Parts: sequence; structure tokens; C-alpha cells
Amino acid sequence: MPVASLAQTCSSRGTIYDSDRQGRSIFPGIGGASLRTAVGIDLGGTFIKGAVVDEEGTIVVKEEIPTHAERGPDDILRRMEELVRSLIERTGIAPAACAGVGVGIPGFIDTDAGVAVEVVNIGWKNVRVRDPLAQALGLPVHMENDANAAALGEAFAGAAKGCESALCITLGTGIGGGVILDGQVLRGASHMAGEIGHIVMYPDGAACNCGHRGCLETVASATGVVRLATERIERGEKTELQKANLTAADVFAAASRGDSVAQAVVAKAVEDLGRGLAIGANIVNPVIIVVGGGMARAGEALFRPLREAFGRYALGRVADVVTIVPATLGNDAGVVGASKLALFP
Amino acid sequence: MPVASLAQTCSSRGTIYDSDRQGRSIFPGIGGASLRTAVGIDLGGTFIKGAVVDEEGTIVVKEEIPTHAERGPDDILRRMEELVRSLIERTGIAPAACAGVGVGIPGFIDTDAGVAVEVVNIGWKNVRVRDPLAQALGLPVHMENDANAAALGEAFAGAAKGCESALCITLGTGIGGGVILDGQVLRGASHMAGEIGHIVMYPDGAACNCGHRGCLETVASATGVVRLATERIERGEKTELQKANLTAADVFAAASRGDSVAQAVVAKAVEDLGRGLAIGANIVNPVIIVVGGGMARAGEALFRPLREAFGRYALGRVADVVTIVPATLGNDAGVVGASKLALFP
Repeated sequence: MPVASLAQTCSSRGTIYDSDRQGRSIFPGIGGASLRTAVGIDLGGTFIKGAVVDEEGTIVVKEEIPTHAERGPDDILRRMEELVRSLIERTGIAPAACAGVGVGIPGFIDTDAGVAVEVVNIGWKNVRVRDPLAQALGLPVHMENDANAAALGEAFAGAAKGCESALCITLGTGIGGGVILDGQVLRGASHMAGEIGHIVMYPDGAACNCGHRGCLETVASATGVVRLATERIERGEKTELQKANLTAADVFAAASRGDSVAQAVVAKAVEDLGRGLAIGANIVNPVIIVVGGGMARAGEALFRPLREAFGRYALGRVADVVTIVPATLGNDAGVVGASKLALFP
Repeated sequence: MPVASLAQTCSSRGTIYDSDRQGRSIFPGIGGASLRTAVGIDLGGTFIKGAVVDEEGTIVVKEEIPTHAERGPDDILRRMEELVRSLIERTGIAPAACAGVGVGIPGFIDTDAGVAVEVVNIGWKNVRVRDPLAQALGLPVHMENDANAAALGEAFAGAAKGCESALCITLGTGIGGGVILDGQVLRGASHMAGEIGHIVMYPDGAACNCGHRGCLETVASATGVVRLATERIERGEKTELQKANLTAADVFAAASRGDSVAQAVVAKAVEDLGRGLAIGANIVNPVIIVVGGGMARAGEALFRPLREAFGRYALGRVADVVTIVPATLGNDAGVVGASKLALFP
């Protein structure tokens, strides 16, 4: 039975995607040699994404379920456990043959204790994740901050694959970041390394969720772009942009159609992002900078001016050796990176 | 013969310092057990410093000679070789028993090729350092950027000893920086990692030697402090500071005596330095920040407000786990760090 149809047969819910990686089966007993696999989980405010990923970083099956944050941690952990079981079942692998589970969590975590210390999006405080899940599943469970997991995913099987060092950012509502060194994510003393979204660019700037002002996130995220555009609309500047339901994509689209206000907003956000990335690059000196998240879909309309801005602020010898590229794993970066925690602990 | 007098007998030039590390001799055959040693060299614009350092990071003997940059690379390399021979001779160790030589170089280096690519201070371009020195001495030779070597020194035997991660900066004419992870210096893709002195704080700020504007170095180095003070003197502000021969130490001294202009200059420089260190810490998330260089001698007049400023800009969970301390090795950090390259390659 071909891989895809096997997986489709097993499917009972959620999004499904299968890959047979050039015909080589990951299922022991079906086809040729098998690769080790692990489960990656990406806990988000709206969805919990899960995937079985092989040791080459290829997604075998994936699935997502609603988070239902309001039901509380026990319910979420129970359904996370079910999700893992379902994913493993769909691959036909004996659970014990799975290398383990990696979980990316959108908040502050304590990996020594296996605890999610604070997850604002879903209202968690000091939730034990690792041990309950490991005991229920009989598998090793690893945890990582979600931005770090996404960076690890791009390094494992995405745009930064094979790169000895990388600075990865996700441009979404906020700006997440992760630093990859020798294929490993830099965790730092409190799992906060790579938090480039909160470097203070403008000490007197707009208030940020983190409690400070003028963070990179306030000027160069999708939220920042919308805020800058809204300010100009409110000042009565002449633009096709409408204040209601405005998105960063609207602003990029208007800029591409020649709207001068939208162009000014994009130019300012990109200039700041270029300076922010240059700051990060002067400190990490990576070979690649990977930019993902919704805003990265603007493509060359973002990347061309971004590379120029970066060059205006990075040291020459830092800029000489680095390339700035779009992320390639999209929303899968988190599950792929999380799986790597279990595949190569 | 006691260690100190042995070394004094061998002395023929330069500064001399000896340590017998609680009576344990490093000289084979003299006293008790011996420790492995290596030679660390710190090439500077004015002096070449050298030291024999043991595997615990203790300086056994040290010596410095003038650089005489005007005599060219061959002459400098020859005298560097003589310095190494002299240092080893003074310890009484057989040259072959020395683990090797580490050289810190104040410029851009290519460690793969063993070449000093560009050293502005002493006018070097593409000077082969490693192989000629290794062949002449019959010892392995390692190279590192001088700021990275200083950071490595503080991690090996100074303020960051035993710390799993550190951000080290040197506040002098410029601002040098180095990142330590797991006891190793982070080199980056082109040996530029840790260049926090050149993160652009003010895009429209003062011109920096690097070609950009408003780098941290332009506002928070000794040069930056003097520039800020001079601007205020020239504007006719009422102060005891004199424009001629003004130093950063003068500004700190005047500030401590209550001079309001000096106080404003110090406050501004420290605020910017705090923000710059917070930026670096948000990215690296270190357990310690070590501040060395001439300006660090201002002591708590610098460190108290610096810690406060840092707290205004660093993420809470980054600030919670980090301490900001003065460097402890002073001008020896470079030779100690360079020696570590050879002791633990």
C-alpha cells in the first residue's frame, strides 16, 4: 500500500499531509530501509499542531487540533497525548520505536523541571508538561520555546539546513527569534536567547507587550506596520488604506500599487528591521538569516529593501558572509524543530 | 631556588610578574607536580604582551616589548618569536613541553589560513602569522581576534570563570566585545561575533570608524564620553571640565564632585551602554556580563547606574538571571585568553 493512501486511511480528523520522500518508506516492514522518527508538537493559542518527522527532517504525517485554551491545562495535555498517539498510529510504527516527543511552547519554559512557567497566550502558569506526558506515553518528552523550535526546524530541514550558524526570525503579530549554532538552538541562561523582537530600538517609542517601549516588535512586526499605517491614516494623510480591519498584507499590497503612504510605512518598517537584524548579526555573525512568518510572504518586496537596509547597518565583514533568505517550512517549522529535540537530544 | 628569584634571574627586559600559585611549582623538577603551560601573546598597537600561563589560567611569567609597528610585519614576527623563547626560557620548561602559543590580534583574522587579514592599528594586510611562527618555534600556534581573546581570558580565569555563558566587553577608546558559550569563544562566520561596539544605536548619530553612524562605540566608549563632554563645553555649558586633554576619567571625576554637565554626560553614556548591553543580553541570554577596559575603573560610579539602565531595557527574564560585574584580569585578559587557545585547542 503506498504511504499516502495508508495515511489517508488512518486519518480521522484535522489537516493531513504525507510525504513518501522519493519512495522510501518510513514504515518498518513496508518498502525498504526505515528511518528513525519522532513526534513534534507545536502548541499555539488557537491550534495544537503535531507531526511525525523522520531523521532527515521530512514530515511523514501531520495533524492539528483546536487548543481550547479555556478548558485548562489538564484537558490540553490529555488531548496532546491523544494527538501523539493518533499520529504514531497513523504511521504504523510501534510506539516504542518512536524516538520520543518534542513540544514547542509559546512562552517561558524551565527545561530542567519540565515545566511551562508562563504561557500568556493560553493562560498557563507553572504547568508540568514533560513528566506527565512522558509517563502517559512511555516516551521521552523534550520541551523548547516555540520561536527556538521554529528556528531549529529551519536549521534541521528548512532554509538554514546545513548552515553552521543562523539567526532565524518570525515576523508575525510579534517578532520571534532563535539563534542556531552548530545545528543546535542557543537556549541561553533562561531560554530567552534570540529574543531579537524585544531589543529596544527607540527608547521613547511605542509601548510593547513586554513592558518596555520601542522594541523591534513595535516597529517591524505586522502589528507594527498596521500601527504605523493607522497613525498616518488618522493624521489624514492621503492613502487608499482604510483603518478598519487593516492588515500588514494590505499595506504591502497598497505599497506595490504605488500608494505613497503605504510605501513610506513599509520603507520605515523595513529600515528598522534591517537595523535590528544587523544588530543581531553583529553579535552572532551568522552565515544565514532566515525570515519567516506571515510578513515574509511579501517576498522580494520585503527582501530586496531589507537586504539593502541590513547593509547600511551591519559591519562589512558581517554583511559579507551572510545571506538573508525566506523561511521555507512555513507553519511546519515548529513541529519539525520540536521533533528534532527528540530525534537528536 | 624559589620560583620568583629564578624568574628574576632570567629577566633581561620588560615588566616581570611571577606567581607560584600557593607554593606549587610549575617548573618540572622543582618542587611538586607540574601543570601544563602555554604562551599567550597579545599584539597591540604600542606593546606586544606575552605570558606563560598554566592550565589553571595563572600567569607564571609575563613580559612586554614595544610593537614598533613602523618596522613592518617581518620584524614584529621575529621579535614575537624571541618573546616566546624568552618567556619559555624563564620558566625553565623545555620548549617542547609547552602546549603551544596563542596570539590575540587586534583586527580581522582568518584562522583557517592562519592569516591576519587586516590590522588597522599596525598597518597589516594579509600577514601570515600562524605558520611562520609555528615553524620557527616548533610549536602549534593559534590565533584569535583580541577582543575575543580578552573575553576568553575572563572566562578562563577572570570574572566569568566557571560561567556557562558570558557577554564580555572592553570599554576603552572603542568598545570590544566577545561572547562566551560553554567556555568557548563564539567566533561566528567571520570571527566578528560579539561586535557589540558596532551595533547602531542612533542611525543619525556621530560617525564611527567602522563607516556607519551612531554605533554604541560612538556614545558609550571613553572616546564617546569625551566627545559628548566636548560638545557641551563648546556649547558654553557651565562646567569645571576643560576641553584640552580631556579624558573619560576626568568626566567621571567631575561627575563625582557634583559637576552637573559631567553628570549629564555620564548619565547619557551609561543609559546608552545599558541599552546596548540589554540588546546583547536579549540575544545571547548570558549568566554574566563582564565589563573591562579603562572606563570600568570608575567602579560603582559606573556599575550602579549601568545595572539600573540595563534593567530598563532587558527583558525581565533575561535581567533576572544575569549579573553585571567588572573584569578582574585587567590588561592580562588578552594573554590569558590567548594562552587558553593553545592549552585547550
